Amino acid sequence: MALIVTKFGGTSLATAQRVCDTARRLVAYRQAGNQVVAVVSAMGKSTDDLLALARDVNPQPPARELDMLLSTGEQVSMALVAMAIAAQGLEAVSMTGRQAGIVTTTTHNRAKISEINTERVRRALDAGRIVIVAGFQGVTVSGDITTLGRGGSDTSAVALAAALKADLCEIYSDVEGVYSCDPRVVPRAHKLSEISYIEMLELAAAGAGVLQMRAVEFARNFGVELHCRSAFSENPGTYVREATVESAIVSGIAYDNSETKVTIRKVPDSKGIAAKVFGEVASANVNIDMIVQNSSEDGFTDISFTTPTGDVERLRGLIEEVIARVGARELILDDRISKISIVGAGMRSTPGIAARMFKVLAENDINIGMISTSAIRVSVVIDEAQTQRALTALHTAFGLDADEVFEETALSVEEQAAKAAKGRA
Amino acid sequence: MALIVTKFGGTSLATAQRVCDTARRLVAYRQAGNQVVAVVSAMGKSTDDLLALARDVNPQPPARELDMLLSTGEQVSMALVAMAIAAQGLEAVSMTGRQAGIVTTTTHNRAKISEINTERVRRALDAGRIVIVAGFQGVTVSGDITTLGRGGSDTSAVALAAALKADLCEIYSDVEGVYSCDPRVVPRAHKLSEISYIEMLELAAAGAGVLQMRAVEFARNFGVELHCRSAFSENPGTYVREATVESAIVSGIAYDNSETKVTIRKVPDSKGIAAKVFGEVASANVNIDMIVQNSSEDGFTDISFTTPTGDVERLRGLIEEVIARVGARELILDDRISKISIVGAGMRSTPGIAARMFKVLAENDINIGMISTSAIRVSVVIDEAQTQRALTALHTAFGLDADEVFEETALSVEEQAAKAAKGRA
Repeated sequence: MALIVTKFGGTSLATAQRVCDTARRLVAYRQAGNQVVAVVSAMGKSTDDLLALARDVNPQPPARELDMLLSTGEQVSMALVAMAIAAQGLEAVSMTGRQAGIVTTTTHNRAKISEINTERVRRALDAGRIVIVAGFQGVTVSGDITTLGRGGSDTSAVALAAALKADLCEIYSDVEGVYSCDPRVVPRAHKLSEISYIEMLELAAAGAGVLQMRAVEFARNFGVELHCRSAFSENPGTYVREATVESAIVSGIAYDNSETKVTIRKVPDSKGIAAKVFGEVASANVNIDMIVQNSSEDGFTDISFTTPTGDVERLRGLIEEVIARVGARELILDDRISKISIVGAGMRSTPGIAARMFKVLAENDINIGMISTSAIRVSVVIDEAQTQRALTALHTAFGLDADEVFEETALSVEEQAAKAAKGRA
Repeated sequence: MALIVTKFGGTSLATAQRVCDTARRLVAYRQAGNQVVAVVSAMGKSTDDLLALARDVNPQPPARELDMLLSTGEQVSMALVAMAIAAQGLEAVSMTGRQAGIVTTTTHNRAKISEINTERVRRALDAGRIVIVAGFQGVTVSGDITTLGRGGSDTSAVALAAALKADLCEIYSDVEGVYSCDPRVVPRAHKLSEISYIEMLELAAAGAGVLQMRAVEFARNFGVELHCRSAFSENPGTYVREATVESAIVSGIAYDNSETKVTIRKVPDSKGIAAKVFGEVASANVNIDMIVQNSSEDGFTDISFTTPTGDVERLRGLIEEVIARVGARELILDDRISKISIVGAGMRSTPGIAARMFKVLAENDINIGMISTSAIRVSVVIDEAQTQRALTALHTAFGLDADEVFEETALSVEEQAAKAAKGRA
């Protein structure tokens, strides 16, 4: 008898019919003799609807009350899934974050799980019940409801799997698994049967949307094996675990065109100037990605970095102040860029991968704007219009092309649309 | 400094705009120096929407999971109201039934409040915060979420007012208060400035929908003074309290055309036959109202009673069995009836009120089908088509006519519709 923790995203719960389909999967697990925990997200777009409602009454809703509001989304899902299981003749019990013993820090809207008291979940499992837990939420020691922030439901599932010492943690979503590249852009992309935690982390950071980084980090720290698969098919998905086979040099290629390149021109090149600039930027709580400082020329230097396009407006005033203060020339923003990343744990032991990447791009007349690397990743910034050409060329050059051209499985139009919206990497 | 408990129904919270209006009222109470608790219902028709969703996945959803689902409606409202107050610059904190210390019995879907631990509410009030509490819900001692059944939010408010020893409990809804009769049917109906608990109970039982009986009973038991008023005007409403003035002979006239008259014809008139019939009916958990057993004729008797039309189908098979068993002739159902009730505490000390009622009806050519009385109420069943004529005649005869003809206040069409749906008595 295995203990399986599953997680179902909003798309798998968007309608009463899908709730029943999800229940059917859980019933099958149980009838096969397993103990079953399901962590659920809010139905479809209901979290967005609640957010819109909140902003209608208060453009800046207090964090505690926002958590109170948003946590209802998962509560609705879990009750419905439990009802649907009962309709199929098995016993189920739904639990709020609090009831499932998920204790968090007090940072509303992006709380961290500090402890899980699994006693009540255990008791229900031992009584033969399927346990449905609200994802994305917990409770502080003083009894206030918290939410875990974006991707919180994945994290809830992984944390519960760790606390319960589950045999497997299955993350159901609307994509079939992790691909060598976005199959909508590179039709010869193939689904990876497995990938290591560290590669998954790099791919997620580089723009692949299948799993949330936090959840992967949690899984890695606690050794929870993940299985990312589709709620709309029976195909096996991608296992995320410690590397069990020799690593590929390049496992996957990700892209991200949601960032803007920020350049501060003609900064007087004095000691500590970068520290000054980025100190200010950090104080605005903005994510900074690639940073390049050009070599000094006539005592002036250009500083560039990338940042999510959504954060740019929040940053602009700040940077203009900095420019005035240090006596730089001007601010240039470019949101027509794409960041292309190749990721592979095998890079560590294979020199020259970055050079090979640059060569492939040069052969295809693609200019490289910025470069950054980690031990298992090389990222470049290019013109957004050249994204597909770059991905296709690199995918072929690094031997990732599948024999078959990617075809969508038999999903409904709506499901395909949902898939398309998320199917990166 | 007074402590005021207010309750806002779903209509007063149906849109973001109305949530803000409700918040404005609470802010005004607080700024006048009062401590303020608001008990809120779910927004508009959201409870019905959740119920429909539940039935889509399971026609008979488990009671515990239904409570889990329905309780989210009030949680959404309370968070939004707290946010709207924050937007107006005051501090508010929302609390689930659990956080507000509302402990209930374990009977899901119709739990009774067993205890209220007001400590957390008190602390928040003492810190100057407006406290928003989810109505309709509580928690069992073992931590399961319960709901209190229909009209539960009124009960939550009254119970909280009792536990907090509040100075006043204001029940805001979409009607202006309690009327001498339904103003849509009898335009000369007048709003009562006050009414005693016992009269309010009788009126509510007789079909007046302004307040839930449970809440009135609770208020009576704990001596909580209620003020029923409209969330859409500044007019004073109706106070419900122990009689402070000499009671009117007839305070109000109610009607109810939602019942069906059930007649079992030609029952062999043996001893205990009524007990047998009603014993069976009681086992079906159906509400029985007026009961009439005609005098025996040739050893046979007719037994009639009224019951909510919605319960009739559930009852039919059972009664047909009883008919076969006791050898009665047939079952006759008549849903084209109306029950008319006159209520007044002054009846106790004034004989002949029932006779006067019958005389008025006779003078207006209205046949009486059934009669039942309590110490302060006389009810008759008549042909539904004669409802308005009966109400108008009785209203005049018992001196209830206002000098002015009732006019709707300046409400929107939607509000008038909502009002019309609820504005009885």
